[in-house]
Amino acid sequence: MLPIETIAERPCFGGVQGTYRVASQACATPMRFSVFRPPQAEVRRVPVVYCLAGLECNEETFMIKAGAQRYAAEFGLMLVSPDTSPREVRIPGDDESWDFGLGAGFYVDAVQAPWSAHYRMQSFVADELPRVVAANFPGNVDRQSILGHSMGGHGALVCALRYPERYRAVSAFAPIVAPSQVPWGEKAFAKFFGDDKRVWAANDATALAATSVFSGEILIDQGLDDKFLRTQLLPYKFVVACEGTRIAPRLREHAGYDHSYWFIQTFIADHLRCHADRLYRD
Amino acid sequence: MLPIETIAERPCFGGVQGTYRVASQACATPMRFSVFRPPQAEVRRVPVVYCLAGLECNEETFMIKAGAQRYAAEFGLMLVSPDTSPREVRIPGDDESWDFGLGAGFYVDAVQAPWSAHYRMQSFVADELPRVVAANFPGNVDRQSILGHSMGGHGALVCALRYPERYRAVSAFAPIVAPSQVPWGEKAFAKFFGDDKRVWAANDATALAATSVFSGEILIDQGLDDKFLRTQLLPYKFVVACEGTRIAPRLREHAGYDHSYWFIQTFIADHLRCHADRLYRD
Repeated sequence: MLPIETIAERPCFGGVQGTYRVASQACATPMRFSVFRPPQAEVRRVPVVYCLAGLECNEETFMIKAGAQRYAAEFGLMLVSPDTSPREVRIPGDDESWDFGLGAGFYVDAVQAPWSAHYRMQSFVADELPRVVAANFPGNVDRQSILGHSMGGHGALVCALRYPERYRAVSAFAPIVAPSQVPWGEKAFAKFFGDDKRVWAANDATALAATSVFSGEILIDQGLDDKFLRTQLLPYKFVVACEGTRIAPRLREHAGYDHSYWFIQTFIADHLRCHADRLYRD
Repeated sequence: MLPIETIAERPCFGGVQGTYRVASQACATPMRFSVFRPPQAEVRRVPVVYCLAGLECNEETFMIKAGAQRYAAEFGLMLVSPDTSPREVRIPGDDESWDFGLGAGFYVDAVQAPWSAHYRMQSFVADELPRVVAANFPGNVDRQSILGHSMGGHGALVCALRYPERYRAVSAFAPIVAPSQVPWGEKAFAKFFGDDKRVWAANDATALAATSVFSGEILIDQGLDDKFLRTQLLPYKFVVACEGTRIAPRLREHAGYDHSYWFIQTFIADHLRCHADRLYRD
């Protein structure tokens, strides 16, 4: 069940950095993902942190650019980073723009044809990937958390708020927190979901804040020189939506920092430490 | 004198990660390089570590993949990484193979036409870049060291052994230590130097070991699953050549590790700590 193909495995920080391919049932096409196994995983199952990259990225981007392995090795965390969309199956129009389709699956389950046949990234990330991890890697999927950048920050927040029992912590770098209200999200959601605004709301962190019972840690880092801050990201919308709810995000603003992995690598240690604190708590 | 053009600057670990372009006199063409200024450089000049990447890399590769900024910020080191060859001027044949020409300048000064007009990377790295740094950045070029990977390890060792007064430490990941004796080096040196074996020897760390007066630290890390170990790298040749000389390299062998940046990022902290120890010693 869910056998994987190993594309490459290389030692890194005493653990193993690998890239794999699985015949995804959720996406009905092979999907790539990468895994960092920390040295602790040699002798026991370790907690799992899913790491969702942003637009135009793939399963290697976060692993190459975030500088996360050093801390995952120190804290005893497995990192799992999926590709950002199906790639091997092609759909007309999937490469017409950089912010929709290939490299831009938005971590949702499309309900509109033709996208609904394969663009089911939420099921892949939240349902299938944990089963793949449990079957093939020494990851403890009873102790999971999730993080992401930009589009991946949206994906991480939505997964945690929709499936609060599955994740003990969520964090995000410069996330899209209100996709229903910004150009990136409006474009993608219109194609993936059509007109059904209930589906839009079910995939929008700001809309989910009022009803989610997620009780884990929520950490958000935002650079104040991020060129997308005021048009696409708007983290304040999420913070405001959480007021009076049980959701209590911690938003940190960083003067001068932008939307890049230079920003992510600067603060990744804080995120993984926050995840480890929750994942290793009884 | 030596004005630079700023391509991009982004905050990173409290410092600044930048990419720049300079009208190189050494190479008689514009050259790109990247610089990480640690936070300490806000208030004083800091020691400078030159970081030379390998075949097919450019001025960003080491900065993106090595995970070095975290430690440079901690230790107070400026990192300077040049491109691996001229790019803006083209020479017939410069893109015929991946291991010679574009992305493969071998950090030497060619003496054979047509390469001698522009492929003068050793002068660029060892002479011109320090002047560029001194004129445009808060780097203390009286306290310099150098490191590199593969072809860049060769470059770092040759610079340190030829110009021992300029560098207080040198380190290398999987360096080509005896280019005159291996296919990569034979191919490049034949084109850059022709038949004059004195020039070959003057650019070969193993040949230089007998006569160099370099008295700084030399650290070499080598993965034992590196596919180029026995054909192109041969670090033992350098160690043997140093026996009975004043050069005392420390060679560390790492079971399982390969030639990649996964290997480099695992051990970069040790290298920068070693450099910092020497650079901050009176």
